[in-house]
Amino acid sequence: MKYPNNIKKNYKKEINYKNRGMELEALINEACKYYLEQNLAVIYKKPTPIGVVDVDYKNGAMIHKAYFKEPSTLDYNGIYKGKYIEFDAKECASKTSFPLSNIHEHQFKHIENILRHGGIAFLVIQMNGKYYLFKGSDLLDFVHQNARKSIPYSVIEKLGYPLQFNYLKGIDYLKGIDEAYKGVGYFEDTKDKNKEEK
Amino acid sequence: MKYPNNIKKNYKKEINYKNRGMELEALINEACKYYLEQNLAVIYKKPTPIGVVDVDYKNGAMIHKAYFKEPSTLDYNGIYKGKYIEFDAKECASKTSFPLSNIHEHQFKHIENILRHGGIAFLVIQMNGKYYLFKGSDLLDFVHQNARKSIPYSVIEKLGYPLQFNYLKGIDYLKGIDEAYKGVGYFEDTKDKNKEEK
Repeated sequence: MKYPNNIKKNYKKEINYKNRGMELEALINEACKYYLEQNLAVIYKKPTPIGVVDVDYKNGAMIHKAYFKEPSTLDYNGIYKGKYIEFDAKECASKTSFPLSNIHEHQFKHIENILRHGGIAFLVIQMNGKYYLFKGSDLLDFVHQNARKSIPYSVIEKLGYPLQFNYLKGIDYLKGIDEAYKGVGYFEDTKDKNKEEK
Repeated sequence: MKYPNNIKKNYKKEINYKNRGMELEALINEACKYYLEQNLAVIYKKPTPIGVVDVDYKNGAMIHKAYFKEPSTLDYNGIYKGKYIEFDAKECASKTSFPLSNIHEHQFKHIENILRHGGIAFLVIQMNGKYYLFKGSDLLDFVHQNARKSIPYSVIEKLGYPLQFNYLKGIDYLKGIDEAYKGVGYFEDTKDKNKEEK
């Protein structure tokens, strides 16, 4: 949904920073669940990296002290049509540009590594009430070719692949993958190759 | 190393259940790090799944109450020669058989899913001072064909692929993958196909 201009000035107050990104995540998780049930792909959200400081083993290993760690990989990974898939979900509050500070240095390096080894890496960006698949290769190209600290919305609209919301599936990102990575031999012959290994 | 028979009766007392599996894990983590540095594969240990109950956001999001969750996938995953890889590391204290209770119901189902989608899934088993790559397909076959609750060591010796420990690399499981999955078209033409996607 788009926010009408007249409520724009109140919008910022309404952001709950604790839950930012949770809505998009929920819609992606729904898709992962649907794909798994329908046997279309095996993609999971990785557990949140947590550093455990203190555990009480006497009471069934209850953790008493821990902290959230900075992720060095992306949030979701798995397999689709025999291909390695990894991506992150990013809600963007700005209407004009996507801040690159959303992505940690380690994550850029990780995306580069995945691409080098023949995997598929991308971002799912929620911006201006729309969802886009933004390829990892386009992200790295932008960073290498620009000194900017954010990606203008016009670039996301131009290079990104729109993703559809579906009440049954959540955000149908597999359809976006099919579109974004068609051609270049990515998914050819997958029907034959995806037999069980023995 | 093998434990001489005369210290066998004391062995059980020495097991530290908190740290069981940590030694093997450390050697696998070393290999992952080496492979990443040498640009051979991108394989990470997933964060331990933790359920967060209480967080103090006032003090930099410190977690005050949390618990360890049962994993429904395997511990390590990533990409090697363009292929999706997932595996778990299991230290086995018994010398005679590997208890299947080591693997949760969800994990069997997950292995099945990975294989169906063309990925590679296996266990790294440490047993009798040796390391074996035991294929996911052999694990599922065993479970389907036997009512036993454990895999005899003789079966692991027969079907498993021995892995070498190396002071530089830790446990060199990529070499085991090359051996276990050679033939059947698994890694053919990977040099051409593993170019970066655009």
